[in-house]
Amino acid sequence: MSRLSPVTVASVPPAAIHPVASKDESREFMSLFPDLLRDLTDAGRHLDIPEVTKWLSKVLQYNVPGGKRNRAMAVVYSYRLLAKESDLTPENKRLTMILGWCVEILQAFFLVTDDLMDQSSTRRGKACWYKVNDIGLAAFNDGVLLESAVFQLLRTHFREKNYYLELIELFHDVIYKTSMGQALDLQTSHNGKPDLAVFTMDRYRAIIKYKTAYYSFVLPVAVAMHMAGIKDVEVHRQARTLLLQMGEFFQIQDDFLDCYGDPSITGKIGTDIQEGKCTWLAVVALQRANAQQREVMEQFYGSSDSKHVQIIKDLYEELNVPLTYSTHEEESYNRIRTLIQQVSRGLPVELFFKFLDQIYKRQN
Amino acid sequence: MSRLSPVTVASVPPAAIHPVASKDESREFMSLFPDLLRDLTDAGRHLDIPEVTKWLSKVLQYNVPGGKRNRAMAVVYSYRLLAKESDLTPENKRLTMILGWCVEILQAFFLVTDDLMDQSSTRRGKACWYKVNDIGLAAFNDGVLLESAVFQLLRTHFREKNYYLELIELFHDVIYKTSMGQALDLQTSHNGKPDLAVFTMDRYRAIIKYKTAYYSFVLPVAVAMHMAGIKDVEVHRQARTLLLQMGEFFQIQDDFLDCYGDPSITGKIGTDIQEGKCTWLAVVALQRANAQQREVMEQFYGSSDSKHVQIIKDLYEELNVPLTYSTHEEESYNRIRTLIQQVSRGLPVELFFKFLDQIYKRQN
Repeated sequence: MSRLSPVTVASVPPAAIHPVASKDESREFMSLFPDLLRDLTDAGRHLDIPEVTKWLSKVLQYNVPGGKRNRAMAVVYSYRLLAKESDLTPENKRLTMILGWCVEILQAFFLVTDDLMDQSSTRRGKACWYKVNDIGLAAFNDGVLLESAVFQLLRTHFREKNYYLELIELFHDVIYKTSMGQALDLQTSHNGKPDLAVFTMDRYRAIIKYKTAYYSFVLPVAVAMHMAGIKDVEVHRQARTLLLQMGEFFQIQDDFLDCYGDPSITGKIGTDIQEGKCTWLAVVALQRANAQQREVMEQFYGSSDSKHVQIIKDLYEELNVPLTYSTHEEESYNRIRTLIQQVSRGLPVELFFKFLDQIYKRQN
Repeated sequence: MSRLSPVTVASVPPAAIHPVASKDESREFMSLFPDLLRDLTDAGRHLDIPEVTKWLSKVLQYNVPGGKRNRAMAVVYSYRLLAKESDLTPENKRLTMILGWCVEILQAFFLVTDDLMDQSSTRRGKACWYKVNDIGLAAFNDGVLLESAVFQLLRTHFREKNYYLELIELFHDVIYKTSMGQALDLQTSHNGKPDLAVFTMDRYRAIIKYKTAYYSFVLPVAVAMHMAGIKDVEVHRQARTLLLQMGEFFQIQDDFLDCYGDPSITGKIGTDIQEGKCTWLAVVALQRANAQQREVMEQFYGSSDSKHVQIIKDLYEELNVPLTYSTHEEESYNRIRTLIQQVSRGLPVELFFKFLDQIYKRQN
């Protein structure tokens, strides 16, 4: 149980969400971004509105490249394991990287609009886009521009591919599911006050499945599967089931790290309690709380007063929430390993084991 | 010039933006909406999140059916003129109506998000969606749900059609262009104050072309052309050129009616001056203003004080803006008629004449 304390957590080397690429690969990936910027802002296309082209370029540069790019790298890595040897050409590698950027741009769309809806302050160590130069509500339109950029890039680079339509429908589907997850998440509070009556484990699972797991875990692998020519719906179903499980595993860790992680490693100071988020910790606490403890949650959960935050953290300890997390993590890890072993129809099990091992016991 | 006064305007019977359907057709169209609602909220599809399905249903019902539905009817009417006689089957008519609803849902997406960005109060005679039950910023996510609904419906009803991909790309293109127009429009003010330095005729034309003309005029006809199997890019180019001209004609009228229309006929009280919008009237006024008159614009344009609004209206009169409008309307009408006559490659000219005559001298 020692790794539940931040100090011990910090002593383990940090790991990333997805199997990451080599340094060279990472450099190669980054070097593609200016080309895609050029594709999207090509002066020949919207000659009569150079102001917008310039603006779009700013929106993309501020919001897209600053992340960990794990989702993009998952596309590249997945394709390498899924494709036939003869298909592993430099051109196809470039295409996987373009798809990786599409996933990153899609995420930028979600982050820009989520930050505005949540009234967050910082993202990836700098001001949220809507806070820059008083952009404010106009940031939502910039989100729509980012979303459009994804489909423009797909059209430019994949129009002639026989999996073009599958890619488009997949992105549509993921946008739809993510916005449904966001709708569900938004329903857990009213006028800024968390509605603890709906903080159930079922609701929690549904939120993270729709809001996070589809676009973070299913999308990168499904994109690579389409590119590798895998059309069998049963294979897609098996991969999706596994990846949704990993997405849940990942998000529950994320909730844990928000409260118990070391900020010097996670790179952020947790605010879930302050913001009254529907987290795994809050749900477990409510499951175990007696009437009086529930009243403490009702009174202090979702307050930014540091004394109130401490009261909640003390309650979590009192209710053994960190210990429960530790047990949960162990059990989930083993359950997912078993599920991976049951995969059939030629899906490469090492793909999923690699993903899982990258997540397991991560600190950031 | 007499029709420039509200009283005379009111004496002419109101006309709609597009050639409208018969009463029967309108009823038939409305009766389709519950079916599409069912398609989108089918319990079998997202069994684990009934709350979201219920919410989506509310979002659709509040925001989609209350408009004039002219864009939808333009799809139905265009197809009737464009399709081969043998293709005018009840099933194809139903499909044109579904496409009409897709255009209406797309518009609902634009309106819900625009109203929030503009902080408007009412829309179609009732409260803007973001104002209902304190939805607030969460309305953005509802906009994304509406946008997703368009692509879900296309998938459900057109997946097997050979023009499915063309439809998807057309909707993508129109969303992209509309958000570029919105970006351009948002750049005409800073912190709620209009930036008159950018109120030029070129900028004005670009805004209305991208923000309004594509989705209101090009989209309904282009959708019908795809369904009618018209793939010739030159034919699409000709139709687009004409429809963009009509869109401009329509929006300039809209600006005129906002200031000089009869609220009992237009159904709304104009607020463009108060909101500091980049309108045709403001641009023409600035083109003609001397230094002192420009100073009046700088000082009073964009204020909700009724005395300030009157000062602007007086300035418009002083600068002969209403008279200029009248000349412009006449000239544009004649220019567009000439353009229609030059259409080649078998596009039915009556389609465009009908559209134009429905717009010309409209009062609402």
